[in-house]
Amino acid sequence: MNTPGFIKGFSKYNRIEKTKLTALFAGDPEISKVLVDHLHPDPNKQALYEALTENAVSNYFLPFSIAPNFLINNIFHMVPMVTEESSVVAAASSAAKFWSEHGGFHTRVLARRKPGHVHFIWRGERETLVSFIEKITPGCFEVTAPFLLNMKSRGGGIISIQLRDQPEWPEEYYQLEVIFNTADAMGANLINSCLEIIARYMVEQAESSGISSQVEVIMAILSNYSPECIVECSVTTDISRLNGLHANMSGSGFAEKFCMAVDISHIDIYRAVTHNKGIFNGIDAVILATGNDFRAVEAAAHAYASRNGKYAGLSEAKITGNTLTFGLALPMMVGTVGGLTKVHPLAAAALKILGNPNADELMSVIASVGLASNFSAIRALITNGIQQGHMKLHLVNMLHQLGASVREKELATEFFDSKKVSQAALKDFLNDLRTRKSIQ
Amino acid sequence: MNTPGFIKGFSKYNRIEKTKLTALFAGDPEISKVLVDHLHPDPNKQALYEALTENAVSNYFLPFSIAPNFLINNIFHMVPMVTEESSVVAAASSAAKFWSEHGGFHTRVLARRKPGHVHFIWRGERETLVSFIEKITPGCFEVTAPFLLNMKSRGGGIISIQLRDQPEWPEEYYQLEVIFNTADAMGANLINSCLEIIARYMVEQAESSGISSQVEVIMAILSNYSPECIVECSVTTDISRLNGLHANMSGSGFAEKFCMAVDISHIDIYRAVTHNKGIFNGIDAVILATGNDFRAVEAAAHAYASRNGKYAGLSEAKITGNTLTFGLALPMMVGTVGGLTKVHPLAAAALKILGNPNADELMSVIASVGLASNFSAIRALITNGIQQGHMKLHLVNMLHQLGASVREKELATEFFDSKKVSQAALKDFLNDLRTRKSIQ
Repeated sequence: MNTPGFIKGFSKYNRIEKTKLTALFAGDPEISKVLVDHLHPDPNKQALYEALTENAVSNYFLPFSIAPNFLINNIFHMVPMVTEESSVVAAASSAAKFWSEHGGFHTRVLARRKPGHVHFIWRGERETLVSFIEKITPGCFEVTAPFLLNMKSRGGGIISIQLRDQPEWPEEYYQLEVIFNTADAMGANLINSCLEIIARYMVEQAESSGISSQVEVIMAILSNYSPECIVECSVTTDISRLNGLHANMSGSGFAEKFCMAVDISHIDIYRAVTHNKGIFNGIDAVILATGNDFRAVEAAAHAYASRNGKYAGLSEAKITGNTLTFGLALPMMVGTVGGLTKVHPLAAAALKILGNPNADELMSVIASVGLASNFSAIRALITNGIQQGHMKLHLVNMLHQLGASVREKELATEFFDSKKVSQAALKDFLNDLRTRKSIQ
Repeated sequence: MNTPGFIKGFSKYNRIEKTKLTALFAGDPEISKVLVDHLHPDPNKQALYEALTENAVSNYFLPFSIAPNFLINNIFHMVPMVTEESSVVAAASSAAKFWSEHGGFHTRVLARRKPGHVHFIWRGERETLVSFIEKITPGCFEVTAPFLLNMKSRGGGIISIQLRDQPEWPEEYYQLEVIFNTADAMGANLINSCLEIIARYMVEQAESSGISSQVEVIMAILSNYSPECIVECSVTTDISRLNGLHANMSGSGFAEKFCMAVDISHIDIYRAVTHNKGIFNGIDAVILATGNDFRAVEAAAHAYASRNGKYAGLSEAKITGNTLTFGLALPMMVGTVGGLTKVHPLAAAALKILGNPNADELMSVIASVGLASNFSAIRALITNGIQQGHMKLHLVNMLHQLGASVREKELATEFFDSKKVSQAALKDFLNDLRTRKSIQ
């Protein structure tokens, strides 16, 4: 095939050749410069980053930030956060500081059960299948045991193996559900390996029982949906201590409006989505920093948000007597061993900064940052609006983009202190400034 | 407050001081070295990355990769992808190559309507509210007009303003729904600014109409849920052309099993979550590369996946006569102007590599990569299993982690070519190798 634009064997080229081909394709030699400009100067470290994925030509830089003062289960943490979105770290830090003065975040990890499934077709009586599964279950434990030695030494392993079936499913479709405890590892690869071994064993056993024509495996794969691997997090305060949080609001006025804003996320999907998005601004930043997989946590938690048939906010707020309680519960699969956690130098550093937590402790930190992000967002929304603080932080971005000098930045920051910042207004301001200068 | 662990005024320190404080807090001076080791050598560029967020002390490196050969609406693209997960780029590239030989990806962007809401309490008759809103609507357009000049020049603006109300909502709770077309910008800041202006205007108008005690604004905020900002993407092929895709399967056998696997994501939440997670492996990698906000797209699309009351897979596959069609539809808010797109050097490069697309074109590319990821995952699952390819790619990661030499890597790659790769097996292999060497 030789269509213009089709590139044969791209993956076989080395990084320098790939970079050249990319710039050539885009018709812009400047692209090569930018890509090369972001390589790590140490070739060994650069090789390490390239080995993480395929066809790597450069490194994407995301700011690695610190949110200090997270008091979680009575221990202070500095939390590493990686995000491209301005305000997220400032918002998390601000909520952390506030709650550190009110007892901090309290968390609880419920049972850590992670499911995987062999999906298959069974052409035959259900009772025959039930006894077949019963017969092969001990063997399923046996064939996977050699791969689970490490996991077992850390307290993990396979918890249960059982047939799963739902009345509304197609008649011949079944699952063999395998529940894992992966201890401090996220465990995706290990779960998938075990499931594939079990699937092969199942087919072999069907063959040796002379019923191979009755069984057809469709696929074997972990599920990222883990409603039995949940972390809960909450903060609580006497409402009187919320007096003065905002100039024109009493503590109880604040608490009532806060609860109202949270409640809206339970009745309207339009609000629920952005409410939860704000929670994930914090959650994903810690997941990225610690070398975990944010797609897995996003998918699980958003599906969990719809578990009652209607997509809703993940957090809840309530006033009981004089007390405001604000909490969050969500499924979360993360690890502190395996995967990228030791391979990626900054993920390793992030875990050190967090005091080398185990998986439960990391889940607690992540949930706390999620709740903190949610608190700051709602606090801003029900008081000054989110744009005031956000645009001030955003100003520095835009000034960079417009090539402002240090002096121009100072003047602009002063000028826009009490004004609405927009790209257009900022451009006008800089133009005015520069025109005046050239006239003088 | 002076609890041990509480750090006062952290944000006021400069980057060097913040780095020292972080290492001191963690009790490990090595952390400083790792953080400093990942700064950009050019102070101006480093300052740029630091300005994106708050409290930045370093840069988190994520490999910037290229997936070539994406034929989308008859044009070839090299797609920049940023992900920490191995196999994702290889899987997308492999699907891109396959479908480029079968007509490629075809996409369609449906109406691009983005909603925002002023949430408020109205203490009074509904009819009075309806006429109040009618009265102030022209004014809402007027007060926001100065901020929308740029947007209007690019074909965007406010499309509609109307009262929103649901029978199941609390009696006094209403929304003023404002629908925006933000043209090629993601537009979050602009939407929020306009909504806050409208909220203030609404309160002012209530005051001047002497009904201010009847109106209480709760908050004004965009919604990331945009079921009217949808991109569709599909591929289609004659089933006979799938012959030979897998050694032991006919084209129709493959197509049937493929559809079965996709259908399972519509009947079981456990499968649906991981099915969609696989789609997002591709989607988020392009979103990150182009400086867009993956939390926004994740939240919207997962909520969309639950729109029929049951969380389900986002893609669909069907056989019609001799044709297999595989497609995907999801809401997506991304931009190619504003935000990080021009500020972040690698996001700017990514957009150049994509040929400076407009927002519709970028949505098309992102959806295609999502569908490609989904195709490769299901293809692997229903044939060899995902672990075979994945673990081979993963091998190089683990060898790095175990400090293998170039020669050891060669020997290990050869040895594990037809064997199951695990961390433990790899350790044993390297130990054996090294012991044998030291004996010799």
